[in-house]
Amino acid sequence: LTARFQRVAVTGTTGWGTTLAIHLARNGTSTVLIARDEDEVATLQAARAHGRRLPGVAFPPGLEVATATAATDADLVCFAVPSVTLEANARALAPCVSREATVISATKGIERATGRRMSEVLAAALPARPLAVLSGPNLSREVAAGLPGSTVIATRDASVDALRSAFHSTSLRVYTSDDVAGVELGGALKNIYAIVAGMADAMGSGDNAKAAILTRSLAEMGRLGVACGADALTFQGLAGVGDLIATSYSPLSRNRRLGELVGRGASVEAALAEIGETAEGATTVQAALALAATKGVEMPIAAALDRVLYGGITPLEAIRLLMEREPRSER
Amino acid sequence: LTARFQRVAVTGTTGWGTTLAIHLARNGTSTVLIARDEDEVATLQAARAHGRRLPGVAFPPGLEVATATAATDADLVCFAVPSVTLEANARALAPCVSREATVISATKGIERATGRRMSEVLAAALPARPLAVLSGPNLSREVAAGLPGSTVIATRDASVDALRSAFHSTSLRVYTSDDVAGVELGGALKNIYAIVAGMADAMGSGDNAKAAILTRSLAEMGRLGVACGADALTFQGLAGVGDLIATSYSPLSRNRRLGELVGRGASVEAALAEIGETAEGATTVQAALALAATKGVEMPIAAALDRVLYGGITPLEAIRLLMEREPRSER
Repeated sequence: LTARFQRVAVTGTTGWGTTLAIHLARNGTSTVLIARDEDEVATLQAARAHGRRLPGVAFPPGLEVATATAATDADLVCFAVPSVTLEANARALAPCVSREATVISATKGIERATGRRMSEVLAAALPARPLAVLSGPNLSREVAAGLPGSTVIATRDASVDALRSAFHSTSLRVYTSDDVAGVELGGALKNIYAIVAGMADAMGSGDNAKAAILTRSLAEMGRLGVACGADALTFQGLAGVGDLIATSYSPLSRNRRLGELVGRGASVEAALAEIGETAEGATTVQAALALAATKGVEMPIAAALDRVLYGGITPLEAIRLLMEREPRSER
Repeated sequence: LTARFQRVAVTGTTGWGTTLAIHLARNGTSTVLIARDEDEVATLQAARAHGRRLPGVAFPPGLEVATATAATDADLVCFAVPSVTLEANARALAPCVSREATVISATKGIERATGRRMSEVLAAALPARPLAVLSGPNLSREVAAGLPGSTVIATRDASVDALRSAFHSTSLRVYTSDDVAGVELGGALKNIYAIVAGMADAMGSGDNAKAAILTRSLAEMGRLGVACGADALTFQGLAGVGDLIATSYSPLSRNRRLGELVGRGASVEAALAEIGETAEGATTVQAALALAATKGVEMPIAAALDRVLYGGITPLEAIRLLMEREPRSER
């Protein structure tokens, strides 16, 4: 018999966090979704749904909603908060997390000031627990709707079979990996390129240009990943190219939508306000460029996006910069 | 000074052949598009456009249309006919092709009876000429419209700089490669998976599932490619993943459209009749499976598509087969 987790706590009430809590409860594990405060608990309990993030998706009966103290008896704690608040959330929840609990990150980002991956942030805030990460082509509304999909769980020190049992279902198929850095960086970096893809869509660049940009983006992701100790092959898998293309083509992707709005002339602030939820790529691009500088890795596509979002050049100028820069041989 | 081709002959009057002839003429090389017979020459000359294949795209002044004998003075001969007619076309044109001419294949397919790549078919029909192949994410209507894009020219024995000069423009950027087999197999095999992608679209599988299927498809393409002597890295480039995603997401792709029609219940014959032009993947899937069998390579996604197209199972049964088959670890 495979060991199974008895109780999972998921924090927080983002679209992805709420989706994972619903998925875990549907899949037969006792699950609590950790809300910010009693007011949010009351709102979500009254509706038995998260109307703003996941309209039309009812909470299954096995899903509780509660505040942080309800995490105490969880043997698996899943973090799905925005990357910029992960450290604060983890430190705030730490007194309620068992010393024996496994911790899994479903947050996709890189800490800007330090270049740390999300699992490294969690390892510092919640030391001595087994750690894992979950990433892959997982548009939350599709997972919540029960559409078929797949994801990757990477870990080197947690019980991978128990993690797989908790998340694996007939609709969401779980692959496993021991390349924590690669799986995590694939999920974080792809948001940068989904913004660029959305910009290209808004400018009517066409599918030939978009495919070319994403092909070069994949190479760029892999270069930084390998410099950070990841396995190059991970970027050819679900957590790399799989997540990159899902996010870059889906109308449900917030990062792609951010790019579309910026491509039509909106400022990054105005675009983020219109989206109304975090688009991680807008932060990740700066974190990735800082990290790349320390590793001596060139990221021309990310650098061009950074100049569009924060440096005052237009999307058209950025695309021209990239086109002029291309070398003769593919390698 | 780089050597330049003085005159290019492009055969035949497919959407892609016509597009390449227009592109080459726009790019400043004297170009003749080889039509089937005097009737087709007259029709195309009268319209100075190919209304059925490329509506609204006028032939540039430098583009001639003529029958086979006009190829005699060409120092570059480009083949863009359907794969099933390539050998017959090449043998028919051979008496008109100079012994000094460079031959380039823009046909994407595998010969079903023999497993030969298109450049191998051309090498046999037109021996002792320098050979090259052109492939990449190149939806013909986008190239004809002058939208930005990129392509790969692979050769081991032709003057790559002269080829690059003929095809490279501000809108179509040409990369070079020496991996002829990889570039050619990428272009041929991706059509198989674009059909599967179209089926998934028709069934409303969602972007998570489509991305997962394409990720596994890329691995499958790479396995057969490497078994045939190609470089694995080629499948991570424009002629591999780039072409795969362009073809699998674009509404302009005939192979994707074939999959959509089959996914909605049409027979392959009915679907091809509705499309009205070759969808190479419908032939390539059988050629690829035969080739894979000789190399001992498993291609479960191609095999599932073959059973849908020719073996009487439904698209839904095929998707289920694939989902059940997936292994635990990504590698």
